[in-house]
Amino acid sequence: MEVLVINCGSSSLKFQLINSDNEKVLAKGLCERIGISGSAITYESVNCEKNTKEIDMPTHNEAITAVISALTAENTGVIKDMSEVGAVGHRVVHGGEYFSKSALVTEDVLEKIEKCNNLAPLHNPANIIGIKACMKIMKDTPNVVVFDTAFHQTMPEEAYLYALPREYYDDYKIRRYGFHGTSHSFVSKRAAAICGKPYNELKTIVCHLGNGASICAVDGGKSVDTSMGLTPLAGVIMGTRSGDIDPGILEVIANHTGKNISEITEILNKKSGVAGLSGVSSDFRDIEKAISEGNENAKSAFDAYVHTVVKFIGAYVAVMNGVDVIAFTAGVGENNGHVRKDVCSHLKYLGIEIDDEANSKRGEEVMISTKESKVKVYVIPTNEELAIARETVEVLA
Amino acid sequence: MEVLVINCGSSSLKFQLINSDNEKVLAKGLCERIGISGSAITYESVNCEKNTKEIDMPTHNEAITAVISALTAENTGVIKDMSEVGAVGHRVVHGGEYFSKSALVTEDVLEKIEKCNNLAPLHNPANIIGIKACMKIMKDTPNVVVFDTAFHQTMPEEAYLYALPREYYDDYKIRRYGFHGTSHSFVSKRAAAICGKPYNELKTIVCHLGNGASICAVDGGKSVDTSMGLTPLAGVIMGTRSGDIDPGILEVIANHTGKNISEITEILNKKSGVAGLSGVSSDFRDIEKAISEGNENAKSAFDAYVHTVVKFIGAYVAVMNGVDVIAFTAGVGENNGHVRKDVCSHLKYLGIEIDDEANSKRGEEVMISTKESKVKVYVIPTNEELAIARETVEVLA
Repeated sequence: MEVLVINCGSSSLKFQLINSDNEKVLAKGLCERIGISGSAITYESVNCEKNTKEIDMPTHNEAITAVISALTAENTGVIKDMSEVGAVGHRVVHGGEYFSKSALVTEDVLEKIEKCNNLAPLHNPANIIGIKACMKIMKDTPNVVVFDTAFHQTMPEEAYLYALPREYYDDYKIRRYGFHGTSHSFVSKRAAAICGKPYNELKTIVCHLGNGASICAVDGGKSVDTSMGLTPLAGVIMGTRSGDIDPGILEVIANHTGKNISEITEILNKKSGVAGLSGVSSDFRDIEKAISEGNENAKSAFDAYVHTVVKFIGAYVAVMNGVDVIAFTAGVGENNGHVRKDVCSHLKYLGIEIDDEANSKRGEEVMISTKESKVKVYVIPTNEELAIARETVEVLA
Repeated sequence: MEVLVINCGSSSLKFQLINSDNEKVLAKGLCERIGISGSAITYESVNCEKNTKEIDMPTHNEAITAVISALTAENTGVIKDMSEVGAVGHRVVHGGEYFSKSALVTEDVLEKIEKCNNLAPLHNPANIIGIKACMKIMKDTPNVVVFDTAFHQTMPEEAYLYALPREYYDDYKIRRYGFHGTSHSFVSKRAAAICGKPYNELKTIVCHLGNGASICAVDGGKSVDTSMGLTPLAGVIMGTRSGDIDPGILEVIANHTGKNISEITEILNKKSGVAGLSGVSSDFRDIEKAISEGNENAKSAFDAYVHTVVKFIGAYVAVMNGVDVIAFTAGVGENNGHVRKDVCSHLKYLGIEIDDEANSKRGEEVMISTKESKVKVYVIPTNEELAIARETVEVLA
């Protein structure tokens, strides 16, 4: 079956057409600047190289139409018509407490996603627009929603409750939700497959280290704790996000700068993290270049980043009372051997030994621990689109 | 030598007179409601039981005078006159980056403490008032200042830098300082003495769990990380403080409630923690009573509290790449065997085994791990006043 995977932002739409039988990507692309002048679609397929075309896309409806045109185009397309698409799988950021797994879109499901809008005000409304556009343009194709938060709904209360006045949870649903669930689920399953142990018996820590980053403790196939929280600002230091800080700092920044709470939160999200601390960049390639040129703030930022990753791994080993597998994934996790090595150098007490040659590889699936290491350490490239396609097929089955 | 230990709040003054040779407490007490109507001094000594006397104390000067009167009173006093007091040791909350150890009070030292006022606006000004009152009333007695933050000044940059725009550190000195340093230092030293290993070779985690709570990683006698931050709000869940939360939550609370940043910070400090989450109390005795009566929110709060302690211990094991000793101290740490047992039940991967009988003891120095346990676990009652007296003698020597 061909599955169209869609990831909608407020002015963008990423897509992949995946054959779910052989799991090959037939085509993929991106609609940008939807609703803004200069909107364009970038497209590549097994039949053509990447190319960009300006197309007027006042709404996501025109974007979906443009995707259909591209997929069915005579020479560069990959299908004859959209009836060949068996389902659309949509990434949805927030499923709140309503969704602990993926779901077939119905009126009731759409209503519940809308109820989570205030938990992800930048993302959920855009995701809904994409779903509605598909329902309108591809009337007969089933839509499946796959949530970033669903995998973490297995967390026990002690991991998701904040020590706030209880009514903040009861009335406003302020709790830890966690994100990157699709990736944590995909990578932890793959880790179990690689090491040949039953998924439901394995203690795994997944370090999803991208521009956004989160760490997840997966005990017996269930997320039992994760570093992101109510919002994706929490947890480890990220490219531009602070991660966890003393919550008393916001008032101190306000007193010094006169900024209000939403201005400060914006700074914590967009001007902090590795970029803010280094003054260099949110990109680890730039950070490493600056370090090699003697930039001390870049070194500080690198070390502080590693330090927070180490702390979360250590914390989750304790939460699970042990660990069998640690897996690194996403941009930094897959490509930055220095980060992996520095992190693991703190974990010798677990009997972890790293094979430097294996660890020097980039972006491929590889075991980076030695054969003698008591904990297996892997690099496992994540593939959220494939995971969404798989989930979509499962929901329909 | 007799050392007068003083801990000044904005309207209170706690004191102990300690003989530094035999480390006995000769007298202790508390001046309350200084500057407010109904001010009173509570006093007890080796020569009398605890009693309270109303005395007019418009300023801390009158409080110091009242302390002197009590200490030198004919029958209930313990010294003939204040010339017998060799030194005054003052607890000071914040020494910023100026003080990595205790110091003899000079004009320069006082100026530096004043420069830290904005880092501890509720505490440092009160501490300074107490010092100045002693300087005025006891002209010939040397004053020594002992800082809550000093012990943590050995933390490496990676542990104390937040991933904020760099200028927040450079310009405003926003960083992790940590608190309870006197207690962490006292308890970790005592732990080394008990287990008979050199302090500078030992990896120790001190869990200071009182109404305020912090955890500290002490590697070779040096604090290398601690859970409190710029302010004492950060870290583990406390009696009324939230500890670490997603920093994005403040904006969400503001949006729901219309409260401003300082109102929310006040809620995080005073209406949160175990008290806020349980809706019962900040006192663990009340929490346990409520749990035994079937109160589910009390159980949630207890479990969430244990969970954060477990996470910090696990994190600090990773930071130090191992651990030799874990020590529990302060109100909850010394008296609550359930908390200790639940925390340690997560640490079996470290080879920790708890001796239930030893762990049932309250408030006394005891090893609660079995002989076979790979990590020694102790209860060590803290004694900040004695620690201040010792530091005071050391500075003068």
